[in-house]
Amino acid sequence: MDHSGLFEMRRTSALVRIEEALEEALTTDSQPGEIARPARLRDAMAYAVLGGGKRIRPLLVLESAALFDAPFDFALHSGIAFELLHGYSLIHDDLPAMDDDDTRRGRPSLHRAFDEATAILAGDALQTLTFDILSRESTHPDPVIRAALVQCLAKASGIGGMAGGQMLDLEAEGRFERSTPRKLSLEEITRLQRMKTGALLAACCEAGAILGKASARETESLRNYGRTIGLAFQIADDLLDAEGDTASVGKAVGKDAEKGKGTFVSLLGLDGAKRELGKLVMEAKDSLSTFGERGRWLRVIAQYIAERKS
Amino acid sequence: MDHSGLFEMRRTSALVRIEEALEEALTTDSQPGEIARPARLRDAMAYAVLGGGKRIRPLLVLESAALFDAPFDFALHSGIAFELLHGYSLIHDDLPAMDDDDTRRGRPSLHRAFDEATAILAGDALQTLTFDILSRESTHPDPVIRAALVQCLAKASGIGGMAGGQMLDLEAEGRFERSTPRKLSLEEITRLQRMKTGALLAACCEAGAILGKASARETESLRNYGRTIGLAFQIADDLLDAEGDTASVGKAVGKDAEKGKGTFVSLLGLDGAKRELGKLVMEAKDSLSTFGERGRWLRVIAQYIAERKS
Repeated sequence: MDHSGLFEMRRTSALVRIEEALEEALTTDSQPGEIARPARLRDAMAYAVLGGGKRIRPLLVLESAALFDAPFDFALHSGIAFELLHGYSLIHDDLPAMDDDDTRRGRPSLHRAFDEATAILAGDALQTLTFDILSRESTHPDPVIRAALVQCLAKASGIGGMAGGQMLDLEAEGRFERSTPRKLSLEEITRLQRMKTGALLAACCEAGAILGKASARETESLRNYGRTIGLAFQIADDLLDAEGDTASVGKAVGKDAEKGKGTFVSLLGLDGAKRELGKLVMEAKDSLSTFGERGRWLRVIAQYIAERKS
Repeated sequence: MDHSGLFEMRRTSALVRIEEALEEALTTDSQPGEIARPARLRDAMAYAVLGGGKRIRPLLVLESAALFDAPFDFALHSGIAFELLHGYSLIHDDLPAMDDDDTRRGRPSLHRAFDEATAILAGDALQTLTFDILSRESTHPDPVIRAALVQCLAKASGIGGMAGGQMLDLEAEGRFERSTPRKLSLEEITRLQRMKTGALLAACCEAGAILGKASARETESLRNYGRTIGLAFQIADDLLDAEGDTASVGKAVGKDAEKGKGTFVSLLGLDGAKRELGKLVMEAKDSLSTFGERGRWLRVIAQYIAERKS
């Protein structure tokens, strides 16, 4: 069996543990220190996160931590925290006041299946749950690591990362007074995407370095890898939006062109975007050279991100 | 000068430091580890948080930490983190899909001054900034304390605390399919308010105990104090809603009666609610007996919470 066949087995077995851990985090009645968990809010959070998903973020945490033989269970708890944060961002991005998407992962988005108020609250509470899990002693016995994980994720997902990227995206659509939709330059769109999706993907790899007590050089290699696949991920997304169909992608496609904002595809053309994607995958693999043969699974993930169909 | 006069001087001097620290956290261009801070989002976050506010949460953190002579600067950073989290909750509670409030602190609420999408994002990013600050080394050199602060705040503000309480509140208004507004029992409303506002106020006091490395007994005393003033705070709020006017309270009043949901005032009557408030303030003061004379400032805060006019 070749690398990618072995990786599929490895991925499938990790996915089983990821789904179990997500379900446990989202469907328990309550945790010590809490007063009570209202059923409607619990159900909404579970609906949004447990309804499928590629789980690329926890896989990245797991495979990055595995480079250093960090214990699987600690990496698993951190990994699902990153997935919960990703879940919150999808819920809020889909809201009518934001991207107004009715479909997510082939089902009604949360505010359609429930309602807007519940969707806002579910996103809020998922973000909180993320930091709750990262700071629990059961996630990692070493408080230095717990605090570093919180810091790493907060920096990647706040105003200087994911939330800031979503702001830039809305601005590019000309949503606010005295602004009109405008095509972004390649530099602008790269910054936007580095913030909106790249920062969180890079943080997943950095979390693996934190869990594995990596050296500065190893951490930098993983950061480079994460940044590069973050960009590759977005170009693959733009290609899916331009070439895919709603049924297989699981969300509305063709929206980018409709909104008139620049994407990697509109700026580089289909062929140019595909060439850039191939180049980034090579670069991502190269940045793993520090790890030699041990980096093979992260190399397969880089390939997987570029070739994904949904 | 009596205690309350001295407290006013102490409070004023703390407020200067709190406002400075909030301004620094909200108006800097960016922090290490971030890519960039979009100006519109930064302005929205600053508008919401820097536009006044009683700063009760940071004051509670500061005075609780002061019981143990914990360094003021460490407590200050934690204190403003709690205020940022409070700010996020106000922004999201005011949204059209939630309580639909046009006014906050005597000015247009954030989604009226900016727009809904920006308000959702600003709330999100304020929550993230809270955990960012709590996990920074500059907030406290001891990672045990940083991780404990994150855990304490996450438990108080997630599905089992503040966000869960807001869910119960919306349910009581009969906002969802197959539900009608109904008057809550005293037991139900007490649980709702313990989650919605009480948990965060209690967490402020617990944060002081964490910063001060308090004993289990001291921590329990502070928790009791926090829980009790949390309830007192809400009864005072219900009284303001029933008796105050919009101009001095700074937000719409009379909304509780309009919505037909139970409040402490509707269940206990005006006089009954005032009696209950007085009883709680006594109880809160009593729970500080462990600290003797050192607890005097927290005793004044309990009184202040009951007598506030906005």
